[in-house]
Amino acid sequence: MSPLPPALAAALPRQHLLTDPATVAPYRHDEAEWAPYGTPLAVARPSTTAEVAAIVSACADHRIPVVTRGAGTGLSGGANAVDGCVVLSTERMRDIVEIDPAERLAVVQPGVVNDDLRAAAAKEGLWYPPDPASAPWSTIGGNVATNAGGLCCVKYGVTRDYVLALEVVLADGQVVRLGRRTAKGVVGYDLAGLMVGSEGTLGVVTEVTVKLRPARTTAPRTVVGFFDSLPAAGDAIARVTAAGLQPAIFELVDRVCLQAVNDWKRAGLPTGAAALLLAQTDLPEPAAEYEAEQIHAAFLAAGASEAMLSTDPVEAEALFDARRLAYPALEQLGQAMLTEDVCLPRGRIAQMLARIEQIAAQRDVVIATVAHAGDGNLHPLMLTPHGDDAARVRTQAAFDDIVDAALDLGGTVTGEHGVGLLKRDGALRELGPTVVAMHRAVKAALDPHGILNPGKVIA
Amino acid sequence: MSPLPPALAAALPRQHLLTDPATVAPYRHDEAEWAPYGTPLAVARPSTTAEVAAIVSACADHRIPVVTRGAGTGLSGGANAVDGCVVLSTERMRDIVEIDPAERLAVVQPGVVNDDLRAAAAKEGLWYPPDPASAPWSTIGGNVATNAGGLCCVKYGVTRDYVLALEVVLADGQVVRLGRRTAKGVVGYDLAGLMVGSEGTLGVVTEVTVKLRPARTTAPRTVVGFFDSLPAAGDAIARVTAAGLQPAIFELVDRVCLQAVNDWKRAGLPTGAAALLLAQTDLPEPAAEYEAEQIHAAFLAAGASEAMLSTDPVEAEALFDARRLAYPALEQLGQAMLTEDVCLPRGRIAQMLARIEQIAAQRDVVIATVAHAGDGNLHPLMLTPHGDDAARVRTQAAFDDIVDAALDLGGTVTGEHGVGLLKRDGALRELGPTVVAMHRAVKAALDPHGILNPGKVIA
Repeated sequence: MSPLPPALAAALPRQHLLTDPATVAPYRHDEAEWAPYGTPLAVARPSTTAEVAAIVSACADHRIPVVTRGAGTGLSGGANAVDGCVVLSTERMRDIVEIDPAERLAVVQPGVVNDDLRAAAAKEGLWYPPDPASAPWSTIGGNVATNAGGLCCVKYGVTRDYVLALEVVLADGQVVRLGRRTAKGVVGYDLAGLMVGSEGTLGVVTEVTVKLRPARTTAPRTVVGFFDSLPAAGDAIARVTAAGLQPAIFELVDRVCLQAVNDWKRAGLPTGAAALLLAQTDLPEPAAEYEAEQIHAAFLAAGASEAMLSTDPVEAEALFDARRLAYPALEQLGQAMLTEDVCLPRGRIAQMLARIEQIAAQRDVVIATVAHAGDGNLHPLMLTPHGDDAARVRTQAAFDDIVDAALDLGGTVTGEHGVGLLKRDGALRELGPTVVAMHRAVKAALDPHGILNPGKVIA
Repeated sequence: MSPLPPALAAALPRQHLLTDPATVAPYRHDEAEWAPYGTPLAVARPSTTAEVAAIVSACADHRIPVVTRGAGTGLSGGANAVDGCVVLSTERMRDIVEIDPAERLAVVQPGVVNDDLRAAAAKEGLWYPPDPASAPWSTIGGNVATNAGGLCCVKYGVTRDYVLALEVVLADGQVVRLGRRTAKGVVGYDLAGLMVGSEGTLGVVTEVTVKLRPARTTAPRTVVGFFDSLPAAGDAIARVTAAGLQPAIFELVDRVCLQAVNDWKRAGLPTGAAALLLAQTDLPEPAAEYEAEQIHAAFLAAGASEAMLSTDPVEAEALFDARRLAYPALEQLGQAMLTEDVCLPRGRIAQMLARIEQIAAQRDVVIATVAHAGDGNLHPLMLTPHGDDAARVRTQAAFDDIVDAALDLGGTVTGEHGVGLLKRDGALRELGPTVVAMHRAVKAALDPHGILNPGKVIA
C-alpha cells in the first residue's frame, strides 16, 4: 500500500480515513452484478463540506481519482472503485440542515437517507415525492447522482424535478453553490440540473436543497387488473393514458414475478396471468373514485381477466405485495440477479415485453419483469445460477439484446438507474459520436484532469 | 455593407437573407428598453434545420456572430443584434411537426407561437401549461431560450419542466438531438436542460419536443382579496403556502397598477388598496370549492379589506382584468417602461414590496408592480418620460437598487425573463466568480470561437 499524500492524510481524522483492506472491502462496489471494480487507495468518510474540499483538493494535486459513494445501492456500477482512487463516502454527512415550511424546501447533507428526509418532511405536513425502491437505504446524494425515479414519478416527477440548489465541491477543490432557493430563477446556465444525474463525474455534491410539496391527505384508491396476454396489458396502459388519467402509481408485474411471489408466499395470485397492473389514484374525493372507476373500465376494456377496486388500505397493501415482494421473492431463488432499466415510449411497452419474452427463450435465461408501466420504464431482472459461467455468458447476451431492442423501439438504455459502467456501451450507441463529444467537452471543462469518477457514464 | 461570404449567401434563397438596412432594422433588438444593440450584417430566415446548419457553419468558418431570435418579445435584450452578426430569425420555422396523444408530447419547430401550440394541443384534449404573458406572440424557441414562466407556473412549472428533447445546431454547424421521447431517461448529462435558458449562447434550437398534460376539464374558482397594506398582502401569501394550498394561479397587482387601470377603464377598483391578490384553484370539485374557501379564509385572516369568491367565468374574467390590463393601462401613460423580474423567497415578498416603494420614493421614479405572488416573482415596472435624460438616470439607479435589494433579501435577479444584457451585472454578482468561471468553461467547451450570441448571459 502506497502511503497517503500528507495533504490527504491531514484532511480527516485518522479514524475516518480507512486503508485497511478488510475495512475498505465493502466500499469497493455497489449492487451492480458483474460490473468491474478496483482497489481503492483509501476510503474517506468526511462529515463536512470543508473536509470534502480538503480531500478533493489533495487528490487533485496528486491526480488521485475520487469516487463518491452514498449508500452503495446503485445498480449500474457508478460507485465502483477504480484502482488507486479515494472512495469518498458520504455516510457521515447525514444532517437534515433545514426544513422550511414557508418556502416548502429542505436542505440536507448528501448522506441523508431518502426515507429519513421523507419522514422529517412529513412532520411538517410536507412531502418529498421521489421514492426509489431503495428509499429505506439510498441517500439523497446518490439519488441526485443518478437522478433517481421511483413509483410516484409517473405523476410527480423524478429527483431532478425537486432539486432547487446544490452545494458542490469542484474538481479543483473549490466550493460553489448552484441553483437557487426561490421558486423560479433563470440566472445563467442550469448547472445544478447538469450536476443531477452526472454520477459524480462533474463535482462532489455536499449539500442538496430540494423543493417539497404539501403532504397528501386523502387515502389513495387502488385498482388492480390481471391480464392473460402482454398485448392486453399494453393496451390497458395505452387506454389509461389516452383517457387523460393520471394515476399516482402505475406498475406492472409479469408472470415470472407473480409465480415467484406465489411460490414463496403462497399468495394465491392467478397463475395464468401474463401480467398484473397496479394503479393508485390520489385525487381528492370524489374525483379519486371517478378516476379509479375509469382505470377499472380501461382495464376491462383491454380484456383484463380480472379487475378490482379497493379503498381499504390493508387490502390495497396486500395487492401491492405482488409488486413489493417481487424482488425478494426472486432473491429467494438464490441466483445472481442482473437488473435492467430500459425506458420505452408508452405505446411500445407491449412490444418490448414481447421482445423480452423472446430474448429469454432464445438465450435460455430466466427473465422476470417489473415495470413503472405508466412511465414505460421496464426492469427486466435476469437470473443466473452462481458459478455457472455458460449461463453468465447467456445472461450477458440477453442483457445486450434487451439494450438493442430498447434502442430499436425508440427507447433509452436507462430510465432511472444511471449509466455507471453497465450501460456505457449502450449509452455510447444511444447518444452517438457528436453528443458523446459534447459530453466529453463538458467533462473536460469542469474536470480537466479527469479525477472525478473516471470511466463512468461516458467520461 | 461588406459582401456576404459565399457559403452564407448560398445557405438560403436570396429573399430570406435580408441585408437592406430598412428591412433589417426591426430585427435589431427585442423589447428590452435601453439595452444596447448593434447593426447586423444580415438577417437570415431559414425554414429548415439544414438551412440553419448551413448558416451556422458558414458563420463559424468566418467567425461571424449568430444571434438567434424568435418573436423578439424578450425583455432582457437577449436577442439584440451585435455589430456584424447574422440575426437568425426562426419566424418561418412554424411547423407543428407532431402531437402524439398516446405519448402526451408535441414536436414543434422553434418559431411556433406559444398560443398556437396550446391550441393544437387542446384539439387533442391536451394542455401545454407554460403561459408567459407573451403567449399570443412569443415562440416556443424563445420560451426555451429564456426558460419562460407564466401564470400557471406556480402549480405546473416552467418551460424547462416540459422540454423532453431538443434538436440543436451546434456552434460548428453539426446537428444533434438531445434528450428523449420517453417519460424518463438518465443517459448521460442533461444537455437538453443545459440548453434551456441558455439564450442561444450554446446552440441554435431547431426543434423542440415538449411533454403535454391532459387538458383540465373543471371550471376554475377565483378568489380575490384587496389589502390596505403590503405586509398584509405578504402575510396572505405566506398563509396560503403554510396552509398547504396550491392555487393554479396566484398573482399580485399593486396600488399603482390598480390606479392606472381605474384611470384608463374606470374599473371602479378600490383606490385605497395597497395590493390586490388574485388566486385560482383548478382542483376537481368539491375540492376546488374547499380550496377556494381556504384561500378566502387566509385572505381574511391576513386582514383583507375585501375578499370574494367567484365561480362565474365572466365575473372571474372581470376580476382578472385588473391583472391583465395592468400593462396596457401603464402603456397608456405614454412613457418608457423598464420591466424588472426579480424573484424572492416567498417569505420575503412583503419586505421586497416595501423596499420597492422606498426605492421609488428615494429615486423619484414611478414604479408599478405586478407579481406572480405564489412564486415570489416580482415585475416592478419603471416608468420614465421619453426624452427626459435626468429621469432616465434615476430609473437606471432604481433598477440597480431593486437588483441589489433582491440579492440582499436572498432572491435572484431574474425569475423568468433571462439575463440577456440588462441583468449581466446582476448575474455576475449573484453567481460570483467561481460559478461565472464554470459558465465560461462550459461556454468555451461548446462554442470555442464564441460565435453564438456573444456578450449575452455571462458569456
